[in-house]
Amino acid sequence: MQKYFISKDKLNQCIIDTDDAFHISTVMRSKIGDEILVSDEERCVLAKITSIAKDKVTFEIIEELKANNELPVKVTIFQGYPKGDKLEEIIKHSTELGAFAFVPTIMKRSLFKLDPKKKESKLERFRKIAKEASEQSFRLIIPKVIDILNLKEIDFKEYDKLILCYEESSKTGDLVNFKGIVKSLKKDDRVAVLIGPEGGIDEAELKYLESIGFIACGLGPRILRTETAASYVLSSISYEMELK
Amino acid sequence: MQKYFISKDKLNQCIIDTDDAFHISTVMRSKIGDEILVSDEERCVLAKITSIAKDKVTFEIIEELKANNELPVKVTIFQGYPKGDKLEEIIKHSTELGAFAFVPTIMKRSLFKLDPKKKESKLERFRKIAKEASEQSFRLIIPKVIDILNLKEIDFKEYDKLILCYEESSKTGDLVNFKGIVKSLKKDDRVAVLIGPEGGIDEAELKYLESIGFIACGLGPRILRTETAASYVLSSISYEMELK
Repeated sequence: MQKYFISKDKLNQCIIDTDDAFHISTVMRSKIGDEILVSDEERCVLAKITSIAKDKVTFEIIEELKANNELPVKVTIFQGYPKGDKLEEIIKHSTELGAFAFVPTIMKRSLFKLDPKKKESKLERFRKIAKEASEQSFRLIIPKVIDILNLKEIDFKEYDKLILCYEESSKTGDLVNFKGIVKSLKKDDRVAVLIGPEGGIDEAELKYLESIGFIACGLGPRILRTETAASYVLSSISYEMELK
Repeated sequence: MQKYFISKDKLNQCIIDTDDAFHISTVMRSKIGDEILVSDEERCVLAKITSIAKDKVTFEIIEELKANNELPVKVTIFQGYPKGDKLEEIIKHSTELGAFAFVPTIMKRSLFKLDPKKKESKLERFRKIAKEASEQSFRLIIPKVIDILNLKEIDFKEYDKLILCYEESSKTGDLVNFKGIVKSLKKDDRVAVLIGPEGGIDEAELKYLESIGFIACGLGPRILRTETAASYVLSSISYEMELK
């Protein structure tokens, strides 16, 4: 079944009149009577379609769904800005795996130069990917793509735990720090996970991050590429906290 | 530092004369005296380059490295053949995360039709990806891409544990089976992990797989795409068995 996110207003009115109406009518070729899931990120309902046009779909609510499938902690991925379209893949995978928010982070070894004129269109694209991945994985919420920021602009004070994914820690055999932090997590903790870009984390950045409380963690004994680290972190947190 | 896999013979002779010689000389622009890692999948050595040509590089061994960074269990990923080039991504990520072997598996809902003439070239491509990802993640071995097989052709008798990643189990809230199996793993266990293609696992396949001993497992409460499931499984096994 397909899931759609709409505003609180529209959920109360039982109307979908965004791009999703086009998706329902033309891409999915849904018919009157078909069932869909509709959510405003607080409530999620099972609904039956009552009318279909390309720009407007109406529905009636069959039942409220109670299921909350959100990770018990709020993980924000600060992803060192990588090359090409890797960031899109990372947002897609991490949304499925339960990330709470993203901050594409420009670091010393990022090869990416931010053209200020293109920033808004980039953010819009990332937000669209997060929305679609949330719908596909039946998330209750859509992770926020907060902003594209330079590392030094970010205020990490609001986070309870600061995890630095550090490839040198994997090489030198740290197999303790990450599991220690994950085992200490409590429900609703806000967790910042920082991952370097392809070239890794610069020496001065490492010192700065450690000085503000980040713990350098190895993610197992193999070297992961930047686009694999977030998946490892989120899968492990899910395994530890959600599985029994 | 770059890692290269060569044959046992060539490691004994301290010669690299495969495509990797071109990579060292032309892509990496290495110089005499540069250090590289060389492995025959049993030994891994730190070596210094002593001569460079486009088709032949020689080296001397500085030291034998003892580090074994292989997962303590042997995980074979039976990946339901997905669309497009997703299989390449899955092999790349799973190799980094410690997979032991791969079997691209044609299942009822695979949209892929195997052209027998193209099978060998596909396998060759998958093996090249596994080799490169192994080098990048400093694996001791290269995961084998065994063959492209139809589900019913596969003999699962040699495996100690049979894990079926089943999306319906996630939907209905199974949060027990997967962790139970992972916690029961012992060193050197051979683990078969079966993942359906995009359309999922057909009812008759499910019955068949359960009849031969597969346990249907949910991977947390969110729905994962086929290309994310193997990462979840391998990350969780690493977290459970390798981190302390």
